Amino acid sequence: MTQYVYSFSEGNKDMRNLLGGKGANLAEMKGLGLPVPDGFTVTTEACNKYYEDNENIADEVIEQIMTKLSQLEASSGKKMGDLENPLLVSVRSGARASMPGMMDTVLNLGLNDEVAKHFSEKINNPRFVYDSYRRFIQMFADVVKGYPKSSFERVLDEFKESKGAKYDTDLDADDMKEITNKFKEIYKNLANEEFPQDPKVQLIEAVTAVFRSWNNERAIYYRRMNDIPSSWGTAVNVQEMVYGNSGDKSGTGVAFTRNPATGENKLYGEYLINAQGEDVVAGIRTPQPISTLESVMPEVYKQFSEIAKTLESHYKDMQDMEFTIENGKLFMLQTRNGKRTAPAALKVAVDLVNEGMITKEEALLKVEPKQLDQLLHPMFDNEALKKAKVIAKGLAASPGAGTGKIYFNASDVSEAKKRGEETLLVRLETSPEDIQGMNDANGILTVRGGMTSHAAVVARGMGKCCVSGCGELIIDEENKTLKTKDGQIFKEGDYMSIDGSTGNVYGEEIKTVEATISGDFETFMSWADSTRKLKVRTNADTPKDAIQARKFGAEGIGLCRTEHMFFETDRIFNFRRMILADTLEQREEALEKILPYQRGDFEKLFAAMEGDPVVIRYLDPPLHEFLPHTIEEMKPLAESLNISLETIQNRIDALKEFNPMMGHRGCRLAITYPEIARMQTRAVIEAAINVNKKGMNVTPEIMIPLVGDVKELEYVKNIVTEVADKIIKDNNVNLTYKVGTMIEIPRAALTADEIAKQAEFFSFGTNDLTQMTYGFSRDDAGKFLNDYYDKKIFESDPFAKLDQTGVGQLVEMAARKGRKTRSDIHLGICGEHGGDPASVEFCHRIGLDYVSCSPFRVPIARLAAAQAVVKEK
Amino acid sequence: MTQYVYSFSEGNKDMRNLLGGKGANLAEMKGLGLPVPDGFTVTTEACNKYYEDNENIADEVIEQIMTKLSQLEASSGKKMGDLENPLLVSVRSGARASMPGMMDTVLNLGLNDEVAKHFSEKINNPRFVYDSYRRFIQMFADVVKGYPKSSFERVLDEFKESKGAKYDTDLDADDMKEITNKFKEIYKNLANEEFPQDPKVQLIEAVTAVFRSWNNERAIYYRRMNDIPSSWGTAVNVQEMVYGNSGDKSGTGVAFTRNPATGENKLYGEYLINAQGEDVVAGIRTPQPISTLESVMPEVYKQFSEIAKTLESHYKDMQDMEFTIENGKLFMLQTRNGKRTAPAALKVAVDLVNEGMITKEEALLKVEPKQLDQLLHPMFDNEALKKAKVIAKGLAASPGAGTGKIYFNASDVSEAKKRGEETLLVRLETSPEDIQGMNDANGILTVRGGMTSHAAVVARGMGKCCVSGCGELIIDEENKTLKTKDGQIFKEGDYMSIDGSTGNVYGEEIKTVEATISGDFETFMSWADSTRKLKVRTNADTPKDAIQARKFGAEGIGLCRTEHMFFETDRIFNFRRMILADTLEQREEALEKILPYQRGDFEKLFAAMEGDPVVIRYLDPPLHEFLPHTIEEMKPLAESLNISLETIQNRIDALKEFNPMMGHRGCRLAITYPEIARMQTRAVIEAAINVNKKGMNVTPEIMIPLVGDVKELEYVKNIVTEVADKIIKDNNVNLTYKVGTMIEIPRAALTADEIAKQAEFFSFGTNDLTQMTYGFSRDDAGKFLNDYYDKKIFESDPFAKLDQTGVGQLVEMAARKGRKTRSDIHLGICGEHGGDPASVEFCHRIGLDYVSCSPFRVPIARLAAAQAVVKEK
Repeated sequence: MTQYVYSFSEGNKDMRNLLGGKGANLAEMKGLGLPVPDGFTVTTEACNKYYEDNENIADEVIEQIMTKLSQLEASSGKKMGDLENPLLVSVRSGARASMPGMMDTVLNLGLNDEVAKHFSEKINNPRFVYDSYRRFIQMFADVVKGYPKSSFERVLDEFKESKGAKYDTDLDADDMKEITNKFKEIYKNLANEEFPQDPKVQLIEAVTAVFRSWNNERAIYYRRMNDIPSSWGTAVNVQEMVYGNSGDKSGTGVAFTRNPATGENKLYGEYLINAQGEDVVAGIRTPQPISTLESVMPEVYKQFSEIAKTLESHYKDMQDMEFTIENGKLFMLQTRNGKRTAPAALKVAVDLVNEGMITKEEALLKVEPKQLDQLLHPMFDNEALKKAKVIAKGLAASPGAGTGKIYFNASDVSEAKKRGEETLLVRLETSPEDIQGMNDANGILTVRGGMTSHAAVVARGMGKCCVSGCGELIIDEENKTLKTKDGQIFKEGDYMSIDGSTGNVYGEEIKTVEATISGDFETFMSWADSTRKLKVRTNADTPKDAIQARKFGAEGIGLCRTEHMFFETDRIFNFRRMILADTLEQREEALEKILPYQRGDFEKLFAAMEGDPVVIRYLDPPLHEFLPHTIEEMKPLAESLNISLETIQNRIDALKEFNPMMGHRGCRLAITYPEIARMQTRAVIEAAINVNKKGMNVTPEIMIPLVGDVKELEYVKNIVTEVADKIIKDNNVNLTYKVGTMIEIPRAALTADEIAKQAEFFSFGTNDLTQMTYGFSRDDAGKFLNDYYDKKIFESDPFAKLDQTGVGQLVEMAARKGRKTRSDIHLGICGEHGGDPASVEFCHRIGLDYVSCSPFRVPIARLAAAQAVVKEK
Repeated sequence: MTQYVYSFSEGNKDMRNLLGGKGANLAEMKGLGLPVPDGFTVTTEACNKYYEDNENIADEVIEQIMTKLSQLEASSGKKMGDLENPLLVSVRSGARASMPGMMDTVLNLGLNDEVAKHFSEKINNPRFVYDSYRRFIQMFADVVKGYPKSSFERVLDEFKESKGAKYDTDLDADDMKEITNKFKEIYKNLANEEFPQDPKVQLIEAVTAVFRSWNNERAIYYRRMNDIPSSWGTAVNVQEMVYGNSGDKSGTGVAFTRNPATGENKLYGEYLINAQGEDVVAGIRTPQPISTLESVMPEVYKQFSEIAKTLESHYKDMQDMEFTIENGKLFMLQTRNGKRTAPAALKVAVDLVNEGMITKEEALLKVEPKQLDQLLHPMFDNEALKKAKVIAKGLAASPGAGTGKIYFNASDVSEAKKRGEETLLVRLETSPEDIQGMNDANGILTVRGGMTSHAAVVARGMGKCCVSGCGELIIDEENKTLKTKDGQIFKEGDYMSIDGSTGNVYGEEIKTVEATISGDFETFMSWADSTRKLKVRTNADTPKDAIQARKFGAEGIGLCRTEHMFFETDRIFNFRRMILADTLEQREEALEKILPYQRGDFEKLFAAMEGDPVVIRYLDPPLHEFLPHTIEEMKPLAESLNISLETIQNRIDALKEFNPMMGHRGCRLAITYPEIARMQTRAVIEAAINVNKKGMNVTPEIMIPLVGDVKELEYVKNIVTEVADKIIKDNNVNLTYKVGTMIEIPRAALTADEIAKQAEFFSFGTNDLTQMTYGFSRDDAGKFLNDYYDKKIFESDPFAKLDQTGVGQLVEMAARKGRKTRSDIHLGICGEHGGDPASVEFCHRIGLDYVSCSPFRVPIARLAAAQAVVKEK
């Protein structure tokens, strides 16, 4: 028979999966001999069983709870419902991973009319008992029955008003009794039955309610944000109540073994005398710093300090503890590894190593890779943020905080910037033409598009904050206004702020603070670098990005998107001429004009990388992305090509596609227009030769995109080698170069053994691969993926976190098949997943050679790659 | 060492892959002791080696040719270049599959100035020898060097004019000599060198030219049309010349052992006395029916008749033979299985079985499945067609011939039809709204879209001829005109004709003849049915289609697309209200109005299928496909929904997608709007109950489209079962139904083991699966796939012929994984590939249970399925 309920004495910290974090740690503390109120834990398996049984709690689970309850009664000498010596318990959730505030808690369970009456007489403190009882009724109504708290609070407020009382503490025992009666009445009206008097009924209902809270909306949202699978379930901890509100020798508090904001090695926290945990949270009375407890209760403080040290050495990490003091006696209610800011995480990790408490490898696991973002991007000032109001919420597309006057197109942003204004670019969606404005703005806010939309990808590349897919905003680009869901209207030039780490949008200016990097960062990252096996490259299209990425530790460029080089004014004109040309000659002539620009770009890029590898992807997007939208832009083109405006318009129309993502793009362009690949090859090879003449040693890696069949690659590769080899020969130099391909079409993965015959390297383009494998257009999926999260079909965005089951299966297959054909084939990933820690771990596991990600994610990838090695051991 | 050249005496008919069809059969005839001029064959492997070596003929191949040439010289007693007794040869291509006229031939090779001079003296026939020489020069110049024939023909014509000669036969020996000299001069001018005099040089150049001709444009096109891989290569046959033009006891002809048009068992063919093969083709003199040869040369006729019988019994099939009579002696130059019309193919197959020559299983291989199309669709009258001129060419999207007055939109077609006109619908592309007009027209012509475009798929479903993707036509839908590449303009009401079997478009009315089915068809198909293991279902959305398909032998409906049911006027209005509704209530109210229609449709469909299985696919296309485009259509919607016109327009805009194929469609709709799935379930289940009450026994199979993750299926399946089970319970009846899914997203195939936990059946939607696996939008790929064919990257359209390497790998994987989870899972295919013979064979091989295709392809699939069984043995 499965054991669904464990006494604290039966558990330990390694049973976190079964008992949840709180339960496992309570058991562990019990085992360490620390003062912990006794109790038992209903397992996560019981929670999962509850859902498998269509939200019914099984009889066997109930029976096991009752058995453990009897044991608890025996050991505590108390009894549930007993009038003399009643056992009162708390019922708290506790999942495998900490999900603070996401699920529900019921305190003071076990009270009923009779118990309250006798117990209050016995301890001679009716005010305390009825205060507890009315709280219990309200919590039970809220958590178990889902009745609005406001019904109760309104009555309480009215009562206080009638009594002229300002705080709850102004009410006396009789008041509390009266309120308790009123609450019971409210409950009866809502439930159509009396408030349950049987403590065991109360208990089972509360346990069930905690199970249910695993799937409340905020828990689902929190899990999605934090990559916690819904299959984990929550455990439920039933624990004897202790009361910090039973007098001046009582109190309650929370404390960290080190400062969670800075990492300083000093007890940090606060407490309240004569209070319960919720009073600390409510913030009506101001808690005292933990250090002052030393003078108030020296014995207790000493004991607590020692326990804190014990726990930290035991857990080998900074602890976050909850405690209660009941009549001078200290009780530990929780310990867990404390959440901390990124600077604190680094300092704690480095300090723990220096203190000899943990190894460098263990230290590597103490910092969440994603946290490093905090160190690299400006953030909102904490105090300023507290006062700000969120007016909309979009996707947290690129981290950091940005504030400024809003403008609705790129050129308005650029002009405002010239005037010295701080700006935000607000668009329905961005397009490659907006690059300059995106660069000039402090942040980018878009209404459409997901985590891999143009705005998101480019912003991450720039290290610029971005909130994308904020569908609740309505933009009127023509009149340059923006309307919120609540009807609030913002005009051009109004201040707004966005937080690209949370997706929050604010309707005001908020002060930001610059990022700073400490020496701990360098120390810590050097440990990561000496541990990891994966190389980390960057996706960079410009020398500026490349230099930034190298500062962050990038070891090469894994993806240079050549198309981004075409958008400057004089270039785009000739590029458009090339697209709309009538004849091969016209096209070649236009390409001839583009060549010097492109060659110059590559020279600068190669120079910036100082010999580190550079992967250059050939032209990829559908041509119509480059085309003009206005008659004014079309006219000079028509003149230059000597064709009518109508012909230009017709050609632009003819280039439109129903599904451009699956249309005429990638290597399909080079197959139709080999002259494009020829020009790009000339640019790459001539640039490499020029740079090498200055003493560098560049080995360009030419990457053909969107290959699905080896013959596509073969065709384009032949063009590349023909042109390249001739230039090399004509220049009488030695230059090695490689030709490889993106694996981003499912068929390429399926036939990777064939493709490896031609490709010297594979780079997994997991953005497109995810699109095709799921059949999700990344520009459109945002519309329906929210329904997927709400209905628990998806738990994370497959464009942000690699789907290892499906897409990953293809990646793994392609890696295997590719190596079978060419054992030394070089394998990397250059999709957005290259900067996602879980995906980096996957890349390590299947033995890729490198990951490539946007510059600001390079440190994340370095740490994630190191963690992958440590976790593997 | 590889043997690249085989004497005829070394080969036999089973060496077709190596020697090509012609070479293998010449060797076989040699082996049978038939009179065949001797020679040798350069293998297909030599051709492939030629291409592997970058279009260079290898020394070892040349050496082997020379060795075999010496042997031929020895056995014939002649010698190449010998002045007394010169060996003259023909050099002909011969691929594994017959590709008539696609590749090149050189005759009379071995002639040079000296040989011509001495040889003409020796045989005392200078006219014959110089006629042969000048032909050789022209052929060599054309085939080997690629010089235009016209340069030679113009000189010949001028010469004839100067002599007052009408036919070549009016020219004498001196004339021929003079022409020969002129031809040599032309050659010299073009080549900048003398015409090669060394016969061995001539020979190697000619062999190389034949290799090269394997990749000429028409050969590539032919291969693509006939699914012949370019990897096969062509063999080259070098054979001693015999001359049918050496006097009145000589002649040449072609004959079939049976009538290739009707199948009648009687020698059929024609011959010319004193002529060479090319004269028969040139059509200057009228050939005589073969039967008259009996009186002209009784001995030869008798010998030929016997050889014909021998060959037919030897090959067990109707033979197509070429022969030459040289001075009373019969030579066989070729035999091969004769091409025949569909009725002839059926009759020959049935007759051969009745004659005891072959088994029924062998007979099944004698009819090309695709040929059956000819029996089911109207065709152009042959005589009328000869006079017609092709004005454009598109894709052969749906077979059959259609003629009529052109109209540019569906409603104009329907009105013209009411007036009694025969019509063709001409559109840029069709959309679901055009259904009625498509049905009323005799054929459909579209400018855009490929083999699986809306027009193509729907036309095939209707058995209506269709030419799609005819991109060279420019349509002005507004002014209702159409312009050809040559600038010819057609107006509304002008006559045009289209051939959906060839893609040809004609600018005139052409008489058509109705299809007729003979008794042989029934006999033959019954053999197919008793042989095949695959079941054959049909894709049908209407009772009419279903009934048609059952007549053709369909054993159920494999795909009923429910969205096609929404386009009638009163339905579309409510469907649009549903899409644009503001609230769940409004949507449910609109769905409530649609329910009776949909239920009624299902009732009729179930009734038509009389208990055969029916797979119903739930709503699949993106919702915006259903939306109105004009303000007039939007107004009543706005009124009915009580919202402003502007709101309607905004909502329609909001529904637009960048890549709708990968957007909000398929099961994603049911996840966002479960009420749609609820309505469809009610319609299906209530219809089944109603029909079963009348004594039928329907088991509906409900298919959820576009599933990529088992949780999607689970979510929608829960809705289906909940609604269905309640209705069944409320009605107090027994009804079984199944829930399954399309496998059309690569991820579904990759995770089929998971998906099979929920799915009771899989139907492979290979249209979408091909789109996603290749990343080819089927609406856009037409634009660039032509470049793929031209550049030999692709050999066939992956939307028409299943890509077994990539897409097939996913299908096979999904079948295997699905069975692993659920051993009795029912597996079928419902993409357009279900009617393609090669793809059907693949489905048989991987063990699917059924294929489903459009009604008119059902017989094709039945035969292909039977052939798959026979071929497997």
